[in-house]
Amino acid sequence: MSNTAGQIIRCKAAVAWEAGKPLVIEEVDVAPPQKDEVRLKILYTSLCHTDVYFWEAKGQTPLFPRIFGHEAGGIVESVGEGVTDLQPGDKVLPVFTGECKQCRHCKSEESNMCDLLRINTERGVMIGDGKTRFSKDGQPIYHFLGTSTFSEYTVLHVGSVAKINQAAPLDKVCVLSCGISTGLGATLNVAKPTKGSTVAIFGLGAVGLAAAEGARIAGASRIIGVDLNSNRFEAARNFGCTEFVNPKDYDKPVQQVLAEMTDGGVDRSVECTGNINAMISAFECVHDGWGVAVLVGVPNRDDAFKTNPVNFLSERTLKGTFFGNYKPRTGLPDVVEKYMNKELEVEKFITHQVPFSEINKAFDLMMKGEGLRCIINMEG
Amino acid sequence: MSNTAGQIIRCKAAVAWEAGKPLVIEEVDVAPPQKDEVRLKILYTSLCHTDVYFWEAKGQTPLFPRIFGHEAGGIVESVGEGVTDLQPGDKVLPVFTGECKQCRHCKSEESNMCDLLRINTERGVMIGDGKTRFSKDGQPIYHFLGTSTFSEYTVLHVGSVAKINQAAPLDKVCVLSCGISTGLGATLNVAKPTKGSTVAIFGLGAVGLAAAEGARIAGASRIIGVDLNSNRFEAARNFGCTEFVNPKDYDKPVQQVLAEMTDGGVDRSVECTGNINAMISAFECVHDGWGVAVLVGVPNRDDAFKTNPVNFLSERTLKGTFFGNYKPRTGLPDVVEKYMNKELEVEKFITHQVPFSEINKAFDLMMKGEGLRCIINMEG
Ligand SMILES: NC(=O)c1ccc[n+]([C@@H]2O[C@H](COP(=O)([O-])OP(=O)(O)OC[C@H]3O[C@@H](n4cnc5c(N)ncnc54)[C@H](O)[C@@H]3O)[C@@H](O)[C@H]2O)c1
Ligand SMILES: NC(=O)c1ccc[n+]([C@@H]2O[C@H](COP(=O)([O-])OP(=O)(O)OC[C@H]3O[C@@H](n4cnc5c(N)ncnc54)[C@H](O)[C@@H]3O)[C@@H](O)[C@H]2O)c1
Ligand SMILES: [Zn+2]
Ligand SMILES: [Zn+2]
Ligand SMILES: [Zn+2]
Ligand SMILES: [Zn+2]
Repeated sequence: MSNTAGQIIRCKAAVAWEAGKPLVIEEVDVAPPQKDEVRLKILYTSLCHTDVYFWEAKGQTPLFPRIFGHEAGGIVESVGEGVTDLQPGDKVLPVFTGECKQCRHCKSEESNMCDLLRINTERGVMIGDGKTRFSKDGQPIYHFLGTSTFSEYTVLHVGSVAKINQAAPLDKVCVLSCGISTGLGATLNVAKPTKGSTVAIFGLGAVGLAAAEGARIAGASRIIGVDLNSNRFEAARNFGCTEFVNPKDYDKPVQQVLAEMTDGGVDRSVECTGNINAMISAFECVHDGWGVAVLVGVPNRDDAFKTNPVNFLSERTLKGTFFGNYKPRTGLPDVVEKYMNKELEVEKFITHQVPFSEINKAFDLMMKGEGLRCIINMEG
Repeated sequence: MSNTAGQIIRCKAAVAWEAGKPLVIEEVDVAPPQKDEVRLKILYTSLCHTDVYFWEAKGQTPLFPRIFGHEAGGIVESVGEGVTDLQPGDKVLPVFTGECKQCRHCKSEESNMCDLLRINTERGVMIGDGKTRFSKDGQPIYHFLGTSTFSEYTVLHVGSVAKINQAAPLDKVCVLSCGISTGLGATLNVAKPTKGSTVAIFGLGAVGLAAAEGARIAGASRIIGVDLNSNRFEAARNFGCTEFVNPKDYDKPVQQVLAEMTDGGVDRSVECTGNINAMISAFECVHDGWGVAVLVGVPNRDDAFKTNPVNFLSERTLKGTFFGNYKPRTGLPDVVEKYMNKELEVEKFITHQVPFSEINKAFDLMMKGEGLRCIINMEG
């Protein structure tokens, strides 16, 4: 038992005081975990578009001051009442969604959309008592996605904490707790390309590259990367992409370009852009008879998916996925194993590293579109 | 070998001389089967909406004189060059689509949309030589769907002929060659409800009732029939429907009504209406996390399927099917077996019978919406 258990911990956290303003490293108080909660010591965290999006707060109700961060790795510092399957010292990944193991979704083999812990971007407090565990000089500071990993210590619901292989290097596997597992799972768990098949990946950001990596692992023989930004193509070769299409280079729809390249359509497609036109193209470019398209990108609120229903009748399938259909607690440890046994290469996603004190640099890099993932070393 | 092999056969056929005009029973000449063709003696045929639709010829280029008919049972009279897996005397079902066993679709485990023999409603001639095998006084008469079963004898491509259990009663199993297998397969092969699940069936015509029958066979515990015509509900109980919803009885969308009845949505839905609004409702009424919707109905040419893409991201699946995903030659015999071993009840689909001489009565019944299937006895 750590000697901080049951105590308030004072530690450093990067607080977002206002929308779009640089984070400020502050001394904050982190209350002990309550019933069904866990307090983690974060060792490494990284930055994802979702953090930036809610920090900019252009599309949603702003909630500040707030501690962002949801891609991370850490160890359990202490556990609250009723937590039996985690112990201080366990190596874990925090997750922005969760697995309560009780609801219909958790009990279903097919779903990972836990009724209790499903992503909620609006909530800034703990589910148990509706309060925050963070404060500074008595002022509450809000949580983000139930994770708030831009803090040396943070409190999570136990259902959002995945215990992983104790030998896993947290400075690498920390990036598996959001977008990379999402893209990988979209291909491996949902699109399920067979060996030798042809797969199109729409959008070559971190999520799309992870989807391509999934296609490579599955043994696809042609992996066609589609992006409006041709600068993405060179790096994408390292993730298994064999061919590239920039829709801007053609005066016909990209689905038609792909159909012509592949004798009627690709076997599988995975959309990782968030753009509604890419979603429609990703569906319409799959082969009739057996093609499966998977949507991953988060669309705008008012977008409408629109297609001729005959595209379905000719035996195409359209699915969407959330977090690559991985159940956080039971599925994520397997992704870590894929890294440990060298099936999955994680290093190539990590293009930058900064110490915690320079966390705003990670924001700058992402906003400039430079690199893929920047690891923030909490102890550095 | 029958003594008519290689000869022209003169026999009775119901010829449609003009769009929408009653068929006329005529003596026609049926040429012998050519390479890869089979000549069948039809014993029983039934009528499907597709016959009526092309006979009315309101939406398409009219092609007359023509012999309609595609749901039927018969025996092989003679075979053309190169046909080795069928022999005179074999009991068979003719099919409006086909299975060449050579193309990518036929070789794929997932598809039944044969490149060579896929349904073609415009073609009125044989694929091999572009000619008809029917004539009257030298005037060619066109084929329909490669089957033209409203004739005592007809010629088909071997790929559109399914050899079935030689003990099967053709006056019953003849109805399995189109809509009933389509609905049944949509549920059993594509929607695949698990035991105890909840299934919604949109449209309670013959196809929808067969889909309900599939849900009953699969062990679904709630089967909710949805139709704008409440007259369909009583009969639908015999096909396993346990509950009914008429969208007209509510002032909210039917998908919302179903979600409220089922704690968030049905596990599976099968759309058998051809109506675009029903297609959209059938998709949106399935439960997030695991729901699967299957489209069967043939939409209008300009219909657009439109939904919020978030409905996919919350892990709903949308698929379409053609002929219930059965491969005609390899899959249809299994449907006949389901009838032979009493899993599938076919009799309840057969509500009327007429002798061939009164075939126009079958058209009248269908246009009045009376009953489900009318068996036309070619020898009666
Ligand atoms: N479903 C989930 O659980 C989940 C988790 C994480 C991220 N996401 C979503 O996945 C998507 C991708 O995330 P990312 O971090 O890789 O984003 P990113 O911005 O780094 O990459 C997106 C790429 O898509 C390209 N693109 C945009 N429109 C396009 C179009 N019409 N055609 C082709 N390419 C196009 C862009 O040029 C860019 O390279 C986002 O929508 C994100 O919200 C979903
Ligand atoms: N895909 C294939 O291989 C295949 C094969 C045969 C038939 N079909 C199609 O299947 C569909 C059904 O065929 P059928 O012979 O059973 O037709 P049918 O006309 O006998 O039955 C259709 C039923 O749908 C109901 N309906 C119409 N709009 C509705 C709505 N918005 N909501 C609820 N119910 C609605 C009607 O009241 C009717 O009872 C047709 O579109 C047909 O073309 C497809
Ligand atoms: Zn749950
Ligand atoms: Zn993320
Ligand atoms: Zn039919
Ligand atoms: Zn074929």
